[in-house]
Amino acid sequence: MPHRRSAFFVSDRTGITAEAMGSTLLTQFEQEFKRETIPYVDTVEKAEEVVATIRERAGSDHHRPLLFTSIVDPAIRAVFKVDCALSIDFFETFIGQIENELGQKPSLLVGKTHGLVNEERYDYRMAAVNFSLDHDDGVKLKDLEEADVILVGVSRSGKTPTCLYLALQYGIKAANYPLTPEELDCPTLPKMLLPFRQKIFGLTIDPQRLHNIRTERRRDSRYASMDNCRYEVNEAESMFRQHGIPFISTTHKSIEEISTTIMLKAGLTRRF
Amino acid sequence: MPHRRSAFFVSDRTGITAEAMGSTLLTQFEQEFKRETIPYVDTVEKAEEVVATIRERAGSDHHRPLLFTSIVDPAIRAVFKVDCALSIDFFETFIGQIENELGQKPSLLVGKTHGLVNEERYDYRMAAVNFSLDHDDGVKLKDLEEADVILVGVSRSGKTPTCLYLALQYGIKAANYPLTPEELDCPTLPKMLLPFRQKIFGLTIDPQRLHNIRTERRRDSRYASMDNCRYEVNEAESMFRQHGIPFISTTHKSIEEISTTIMLKAGLTRRF
Repeated sequence: MPHRRSAFFVSDRTGITAEAMGSTLLTQFEQEFKRETIPYVDTVEKAEEVVATIRERAGSDHHRPLLFTSIVDPAIRAVFKVDCALSIDFFETFIGQIENELGQKPSLLVGKTHGLVNEERYDYRMAAVNFSLDHDDGVKLKDLEEADVILVGVSRSGKTPTCLYLALQYGIKAANYPLTPEELDCPTLPKMLLPFRQKIFGLTIDPQRLHNIRTERRRDSRYASMDNCRYEVNEAESMFRQHGIPFISTTHKSIEEISTTIMLKAGLTRRF
Repeated sequence: MPHRRSAFFVSDRTGITAEAMGSTLLTQFEQEFKRETIPYVDTVEKAEEVVATIRERAGSDHHRPLLFTSIVDPAIRAVFKVDCALSIDFFETFIGQIENELGQKPSLLVGKTHGLVNEERYDYRMAAVNFSLDHDDGVKLKDLEEADVILVGVSRSGKTPTCLYLALQYGIKAANYPLTPEELDCPTLPKMLLPFRQKIFGLTIDPQRLHNIRTERRRDSRYASMDNCRYEVNEAESMFRQHGIPFISTTHKSIEEISTTIMLKAGLTRRF
């Protein structure tokens, strides 16, 4: 196909919801789209500019673009009722049903979803991010006590990005406990972890994938060698099994999947 | 009102889309909801368990719960067609329209949105996270060259969480350049930044809010004092203005808003 179809995600605020919604639908269709997110479309004038862009694109693509909107103000939404695109209007579709159910009018105030709702929530999130950054290198007993969950695994098994994601998205304080080669040689749980068994979660990874990741960092090192990766992963997994520690493989999972799985299995709930 | 209404976000995968969608709609109504996200509902049996929970809740709440679902498999979706909740079925509502427009059947494969689409994408994201972590403390010339964007601001103006969010969500390499007291005393742009003017973005913050944040970290210090915070913010802002550097205030913004605003104004696009 010479011309890919365009998909626009248009929002009066960040565009995060419009993008999440549109992407979820588009992944169901096996073709590539030219994707464009247009945030902060909060006036009729800006909306008219966007429509002009979409109309142009319809011509050059030889396909009607798909248009996903998440816009609160009905006057701005009305601008996007056009024939030059397939317009999926998220608010218009659902808000009426909820209004009827609740017997309450929507406030029509823009930007509450990803806005700074209150300082307390912001502070929670920051405290969790700082927690995860401050303790990325060496873990202290105090950190383990304060943590909501302690992620344990070999170096480069995915602990750091998962800790950061849990902090940013859910305000969860996740401690990062890397298993050292010495600890892996020994079948017992590291002594420091013993009092916190109930909040430990293990991460594991396919040895081949670990080898590839570590090779990127330190080519031709013992650390990155296939033999050593196989050994470390094997020892870590038997430690988890022996001590009944829940664990998941990060190999074929995104950070979102790893994080939401940990939230579910460790019974954690968002802090804000 | 003695009983709050419940809102359930149910998904066959992470629940991130169902939550984003549902929350966006609910913020339009001025009441508190008991929110619950139930991810990985990927069999009819699990769906039936969830419906049992919802039915129970309908009884104890004395209100019909709101139910937001994002589920690909029509057989599982069918389980949620119940009278005990207001059921907002995101897939069912929109997938048909897109199918007609594209003249293509949906794949009905689960979990492509927040799944690990390919290793290349994962590696992009990791590279950006590592970039932001490796350079959080001191910035080197090489880092500034490699960066997609350089965030400049006084200590605790919001640079670190923004860098991490840009890395995790968009694969953007954002360097973190803290303005030191010495640099603030001098009206010129720090020498190291001169070659990179076109990729600098400034963050500023209300002095009172900065004072509060810094006081949390170092109470009664000169660093946290109201006078010093006022001085630093003032100097930073005049540096930005004098050198035509775009900047935004982080005071009343969430990390999502700060990040998407920078993406938009700096003309950045996601790397995956």
